[in-house]
Amino acid sequence: LSPGSPPNKKKSAITVIVGDRKLLERGAQVAKVKLDKLNVMTRAKRSVFQPGAVNLIQVKAPAPREVKAGEPDAKTGRAAMAFLEKATELALLNEVDAIVTAPISKAAINNAGFYFTGHTEYFARRTNTAKYAMCFYADKIRVALVTDHIPLRKVHSKAKLARVIRTAALLDEFIRDLEGKRPFLAITGVNPHAGEDGLLGVEEVTEIAPAAEACRKQGIKVEGPVSAEMAFINHLAGKYDGVVAMFHDQGLLPLKVLAPFKTVNVTLGLPFIRTSVGHGAANDIAGKGIAKVESLHNAVALAVKLAKKKWRE
Amino acid sequence: LSPGSPPNKKKSAITVIVGDRKLLERGAQVAKVKLDKLNVMTRAKRSVFQPGAVNLIQVKAPAPREVKAGEPDAKTGRAAMAFLEKATELALLNEVDAIVTAPISKAAINNAGFYFTGHTEYFARRTNTAKYAMCFYADKIRVALVTDHIPLRKVHSKAKLARVIRTAALLDEFIRDLEGKRPFLAITGVNPHAGEDGLLGVEEVTEIAPAAEACRKQGIKVEGPVSAEMAFINHLAGKYDGVVAMFHDQGLLPLKVLAPFKTVNVTLGLPFIRTSVGHGAANDIAGKGIAKVESLHNAVALAVKLAKKKWRE
Repeated sequence: LSPGSPPNKKKSAITVIVGDRKLLERGAQVAKVKLDKLNVMTRAKRSVFQPGAVNLIQVKAPAPREVKAGEPDAKTGRAAMAFLEKATELALLNEVDAIVTAPISKAAINNAGFYFTGHTEYFARRTNTAKYAMCFYADKIRVALVTDHIPLRKVHSKAKLARVIRTAALLDEFIRDLEGKRPFLAITGVNPHAGEDGLLGVEEVTEIAPAAEACRKQGIKVEGPVSAEMAFINHLAGKYDGVVAMFHDQGLLPLKVLAPFKTVNVTLGLPFIRTSVGHGAANDIAGKGIAKVESLHNAVALAVKLAKKKWRE
Repeated sequence: LSPGSPPNKKKSAITVIVGDRKLLERGAQVAKVKLDKLNVMTRAKRSVFQPGAVNLIQVKAPAPREVKAGEPDAKTGRAAMAFLEKATELALLNEVDAIVTAPISKAAINNAGFYFTGHTEYFARRTNTAKYAMCFYADKIRVALVTDHIPLRKVHSKAKLARVIRTAALLDEFIRDLEGKRPFLAITGVNPHAGEDGLLGVEEVTEIAPAAEACRKQGIKVEGPVSAEMAFINHLAGKYDGVVAMFHDQGLLPLKVLAPFKTVNVTLGLPFIRTSVGHGAANDIAGKGIAKVESLHNAVALAVKLAKKKWRE
């Protein structure tokens, strides 16, 4: 996936790109990356591990002259959906251990006629996974979201007891898998200052405190409801090993300001490993060869780490 | 206000504490601060400016033996309210230019029989100010909140066009006063990714985009709706001079994780200057002499700066 990187001495993982050869070649040219050893296949099992080799599973896409960098449309949305569908098939058929996704234009996919609110929801539906959670990982921060891509006005009716417990359980399992320790998690409130004892909202009393109690009974070490600011300040200070946050901006803003280009997005609960860059498509700089690759590198590294853990067990 | 600091060579501002002598003396002992030149008065105009001098306006309070550090109750809530009321009177009567508030126990004040959701709302009601905004200031960050201490479920029905415009206008004026320049402001969305073109919510289309347009017509330089993460990332990068955020956690989390103990809270729109520490009462460390004073120092410094600007005009 990163042919520009120095070749690894030690065999780490075989990576396969799912996409289109001509578009990949154009991208490589822009990014000044050589594609000498392009191995085009129809099945992932034909992949090779060799310094400088790039494995590609070819999926039909529009011709490069029809694709303008930074201007996604129904055509490119349809192609992105085909790449995604192919990668999901490979994972469901166990031809690959993990999927790492690059940013995508949701608008283009919707223009192509698919209802698409995000990769996470797509993978959950496509794999019949009802109990999943969007999780973010960067430096020392681990956050799982109880609700994700929904309008703010719906948050209070979705951040319910069962979903809070489920999200805490998924984050607990993720950190145990990854770091081999029983984590101590903070569960945030929905309202400012975690509701300030009922003065600024009731969900902390009716949903979140009972959920925290239920987690403790299940053996998950949690504290909550904690105000979002104290949850993150104390997570950064090492008191908590992770934060269960109630909604998108509450969980993501601390990460985005502290590690804007490093964050990795992980979907917990799927039948396969899935990581992703933590940023959007940045159409304004597409095709200029100046995109930062750190988040994608970190997403690949985390997928490799999780896959190795899985096989070691 | 900070007798432990080195004496200022240059006369900067006269500070007056509104509180109780015996409790202040007990606090000074814990903090190892000398109170040699305590000037106890009933009117602020009798204040002195002298290195090491501490001016105090005495207000009735419970005896120290009745007050346990870190255990606020109805008695101390009543006293806190009396201090606050006295300070507000001094400001309304123009005996002082600014009020700087320390953290307070909202629960204790409510136990004392007052309905109290926060200093900000108290000052707004007490001064008949309908159009105010809670604003935060730390290092390079300036944020004003369209909604503040309300339950999350009410945010979408309160973050309306008129309130967005008013908050942007107050932040614009504040930055112009303070920094002498016309700022460029980001206005965030209510929903994740600023609603993603209507896919994740409608308030960006129905309220926020028209508010941004109205701001520009009034000569306020704004961009919006911008997703909260991009608003803060680009504010930190210098593109925006301030952020108009829609709700408490959205506006505060970036500040809290970047500058947890430096943040100053300012109420915009009041008839007098009011700044405050940006943190809570931290009852768990009360009376131990280990509280960080940076936020209070910054709050005093900002109040002095704003008062000087006002008198220079």
